[in-house]
Amino acid sequence: MQTQYLINGRPGTALSPLDRGLAYGDGVFRTLAVRHGVAHCWAKHYRRLSDDCNALAIVCPPASVLLADIGCLCEENESVAVKIIVTRGEGVRGYAVPALAQPNWIVIKSALPAYPEQNFSQGIRVKLCQLRLAMQPRLAGIKHLNRLENVLARMEWVDVQIAEGLLLDEEGRVIECTMSNIFIRRGATLVTPKLDRCGVAGVTRQRIIDLAPVLGVDIAVEDLDLESLLSADEVIVCNSLYGAWQVRNLEHVNWPAGTLAASLRNRLEADDASVA
Amino acid sequence: MQTQYLINGRPGTALSPLDRGLAYGDGVFRTLAVRHGVAHCWAKHYRRLSDDCNALAIVCPPASVLLADIGCLCEENESVAVKIIVTRGEGVRGYAVPALAQPNWIVIKSALPAYPEQNFSQGIRVKLCQLRLAMQPRLAGIKHLNRLENVLARMEWVDVQIAEGLLLDEEGRVIECTMSNIFIRRGATLVTPKLDRCGVAGVTRQRIIDLAPVLGVDIAVEDLDLESLLSADEVIVCNSLYGAWQVRNLEHVNWPAGTLAASLRNRLEADDASVA
Repeated sequence: MQTQYLINGRPGTALSPLDRGLAYGDGVFRTLAVRHGVAHCWAKHYRRLSDDCNALAIVCPPASVLLADIGCLCEENESVAVKIIVTRGEGVRGYAVPALAQPNWIVIKSALPAYPEQNFSQGIRVKLCQLRLAMQPRLAGIKHLNRLENVLARMEWVDVQIAEGLLLDEEGRVIECTMSNIFIRRGATLVTPKLDRCGVAGVTRQRIIDLAPVLGVDIAVEDLDLESLLSADEVIVCNSLYGAWQVRNLEHVNWPAGTLAASLRNRLEADDASVA
Repeated sequence: MQTQYLINGRPGTALSPLDRGLAYGDGVFRTLAVRHGVAHCWAKHYRRLSDDCNALAIVCPPASVLLADIGCLCEENESVAVKIIVTRGEGVRGYAVPALAQPNWIVIKSALPAYPEQNFSQGIRVKLCQLRLAMQPRLAGIKHLNRLENVLARMEWVDVQIAEGLLLDEEGRVIECTMSNIFIRRGATLVTPKLDRCGVAGVTRQRIIDLAPVLGVDIAVEDLDLESLLSADEVIVCNSLYGAWQVRNLEHVNWPAGTLAASLRNRLEADDASVA
């Protein structure tokens, strides 16, 4: 499938190299699945996009505008990945925000990633990355365009058997994976790291937090060290494109097949189908 | 003056919104002065650009190619600011570096900033920014495109009487200003902060380090706390566009007019003239 995009709602246009999204990573983004023509969990994705824009004092385009762009790019029954980027707009030079900065928004359609079926049926291997996430409370949780840490972390492996890389912060706390959030199960409690120093607060992470009562598990959002993760009963990672995968191997630790990832995935998909 | 640019050496082209420079800030940049048609300290700027590309495993375009672009954009006797951006190139989605990524380079010409004459003749006021720089040794020193910290710091003031913002790291060490490096004078010694945890290693900072013996001062590159800065005999900031300014005021501290900034500026300009 050909990757296609609209810039500020228009096809066939291109981005100015003066855009501050390029110059400084001065913008935010979201990636979501469109299944059979429907942007799933749209309200939740838009809320996050909008909150992240607010955190950087960027005016977010209205939901209706972005949804119209997605409708314009996607066929009625198409299933694709959609990425939305919102930047602060153009500036000639200098960090000061231009008084008249007009945000630019870009909606990109691409094929859904072809993850191996066994990631879903059997779980994944995860590598512990050497790179440690820096702690910047002012940017923590925001899905902004400053993602060199993720790029460098992802450069740490080429082995296709490894599906993800675990990221700790500089003080050794477990934070997330390169493209996923992470949960551990400890008995009947799901634990996911706090993201107030670094990390990206994904929509699927929040959905799992919200689903916990329905699933009959307690939820805890707290600091998590690597030892607690390695001694967990189950470990899962999640994002908006693949849902949830079980982590079966991390460094020297192997976990037996569990049911949490599959039941979460089913639940996330069922909810997807009912709530556009 | 109209801002003009070349992308990969060509005019009238535009950047793909799939460029990883936009998606992740996956690239580096440099800003330099062209005076009377000559890209000043070109060899030093290119060396830094090339080193920064290497640090991110991006292939830097040859110096001759970039210099030809600058020649193409600038009139024979023109004095302008030139910004060079090199990105890793295009990618559809995902942090993994595409095997076939072809770097894109952008050369942008714009007017030299019109700084107030008194910044040069009398010195400047500097604000202590609230934002603290996160510590990421893997990216420290590199002039990469992940600059949201600088953007947020620069948003902390609108008072045009304030020319710069001082940035400390999360542990309180003095690192740099939003668009400048910083030096203090303590007796006959110039001190500038180490940049091994965060900060950008500017060409003018290195030139001042190299000039110190000629100026008859000792040089120290070391951790520097705010108290040491506030009790310094002189404080100066520097970058490649304005050269050097004296800091006359920071928070509650005022410094008398000194001669260091002016003599450095003269020396930097003299060297500029002799070494293209």
